[in-house]
Amino acid sequence: MQIHPMWNDFPSLKEDLPKVIQLIDQHIKIRDTKIRSTLKEVVHAGGKLLRPAYSLLCHEIGPEKNKEKAIAIAAALETLHMATLIHDDVIDDAATRRGQATLQKLHDNKFAIYAGDYLFSMSFTILSKYSNSLSHLEYNSRSMEKILIGELNQLHSRFQSPNSVKSYLSRISGKTAQLFAVSCYTGAVESKATRRQARNAWNMGHYIGMAFQIIDDILDYQGDKETIGKPVMADVQQGVYTLPLIYAMQGSRPLLEPILAKDRPFNDDDLAIISKAIAEQNGIEKASKLAELYINKALKELSKLPDGDYKETLYDLTNQMLKRTT
Amino acid sequence: MQIHPMWNDFPSLKEDLPKVIQLIDQHIKIRDTKIRSTLKEVVHAGGKLLRPAYSLLCHEIGPEKNKEKAIAIAAALETLHMATLIHDDVIDDAATRRGQATLQKLHDNKFAIYAGDYLFSMSFTILSKYSNSLSHLEYNSRSMEKILIGELNQLHSRFQSPNSVKSYLSRISGKTAQLFAVSCYTGAVESKATRRQARNAWNMGHYIGMAFQIIDDILDYQGDKETIGKPVMADVQQGVYTLPLIYAMQGSRPLLEPILAKDRPFNDDDLAIISKAIAEQNGIEKASKLAELYINKALKELSKLPDGDYKETLYDLTNQMLKRTT
Repeated sequence: MQIHPMWNDFPSLKEDLPKVIQLIDQHIKIRDTKIRSTLKEVVHAGGKLLRPAYSLLCHEIGPEKNKEKAIAIAAALETLHMATLIHDDVIDDAATRRGQATLQKLHDNKFAIYAGDYLFSMSFTILSKYSNSLSHLEYNSRSMEKILIGELNQLHSRFQSPNSVKSYLSRISGKTAQLFAVSCYTGAVESKATRRQARNAWNMGHYIGMAFQIIDDILDYQGDKETIGKPVMADVQQGVYTLPLIYAMQGSRPLLEPILAKDRPFNDDDLAIISKAIAEQNGIEKASKLAELYINKALKELSKLPDGDYKETLYDLTNQMLKRTT
Repeated sequence: MQIHPMWNDFPSLKEDLPKVIQLIDQHIKIRDTKIRSTLKEVVHAGGKLLRPAYSLLCHEIGPEKNKEKAIAIAAALETLHMATLIHDDVIDDAATRRGQATLQKLHDNKFAIYAGDYLFSMSFTILSKYSNSLSHLEYNSRSMEKILIGELNQLHSRFQSPNSVKSYLSRISGKTAQLFAVSCYTGAVESKATRRQARNAWNMGHYIGMAFQIIDDILDYQGDKETIGKPVMADVQQGVYTLPLIYAMQGSRPLLEPILAKDRPFNDDDLAIISKAIAEQNGIEKASKLAELYINKALKELSKLPDGDYKETLYDLTNQMLKRTT
């Protein structure tokens, strides 16, 4: 099975992550061959598998190592992530995700809604089958609620004038950081890590998630169709105002506000004005600085965890995030 | 709190069902007041609460009566049902559900997708908080998967020429009967009913669900906007071919096939032809007979359960289903 080339540098994950995908694949039990193969395509679409990777690594924190269980939990988390991606695609009506035509463009939004729901249920099936206790499961479903509140908030704030860094951070905290935090936490807890270690893992995951989303939002202003798998400046087109733009607004509000009030899609001139304002106000640099700050907070939490190979790997992986271009 | 007037005849349910709604209401913890109140409106929209009612009644089967737990499980089941309704509405693009403007028409489909997801997560939170064991939870999430496979199948079969009664029954078995079966089963199991009793409860629920959906599908051909809360012949407009039409096809295929191949929406003439064909082929009567058969199978399962007031109530409630007009 082909996984993202980034894992070539991490042998243990290169071995385990395909097992995560395989387990998800095996859980798809649908008689209809067309529906089944469509869902399996989604599962094999080649995401980066960062959440399961962090979960697997954090399963090395505690004394109880159970590879089968660790892989199952990682699979449940990735399935949850896939479910939210599918629904996000319907909502964004994005033409492509990960460089491929999205599910809903192929089989329409309707299919994508139930397909997301199906993966959602599957994630809970896998968790309840392998998890240690009901309280962990409650924890997971509560976290999922928070993620969806984050999504609802983001939806609700679309096309509202970008206001403050604080509200942006609170939004991505629910939307992205939560699932990274849960991934690290669940991996740790199921290995019977101490409460303090589990808390460190949670915090580390939270900070990594914050940095990840900020960098993702930066890339939306930077990348091009070849290097990142989605169209550039998709967020602003969809009324999602992220950190670089929020920084730009702080200095160029009179210029930007009338542009943002226009009907979508923006034309190239409008997009150029927005880009220029962000460049003039150092929006990308400021956002990058904040991402770096979160990475450093994450590394500080990491430093409190017990030594071991996994810790080196977590260190490398997390540092690498700052350099990512896709 | 106002619940459906049908419960006036069932005092214990009239007392308990508002508590189910209240518990769901209490679990909605969203800071944004607009999002919160929109979701609470959905919760209080006044569904019939049949699934929680059956679950509460089946909690009387076993020796361990825990009203608080029974209400929580009923709440989880109704929350799951609400989540699927919200997503069904997006998919049907139905203008009204339960006589009110649907969520997605008010706040667009996007909101409805995440709102459904949120309720979905909430249902698992409630279940994991109150359920006896992980294996019950695994059971519930697997059932949910089956429900969604049923939905995906129905979606996939839309606009395909209505073929056989058998495939229709298999479709509604996944889509509707599964959740009725789970409701009865979970209620029974959490009261520590015997395995055999739990099996009887499951079967009863399954048969009730089959009858319920057949009658629902009949009403779509019969009702009018005043008595049932959705537009008449909505199913056929949306390419969902249900039992009355399948029976009509058995005798009037040459007449109906060219009509069904037309673009939607149908005009009144087309709808009149479809109605006439169903009447001529006794589609409604035949479907009603099958619903009655399922009710009788349900009552047979019921007769095997221990005596008690709950049993009388289950008998009355299930019999009443055949007479429902909304």
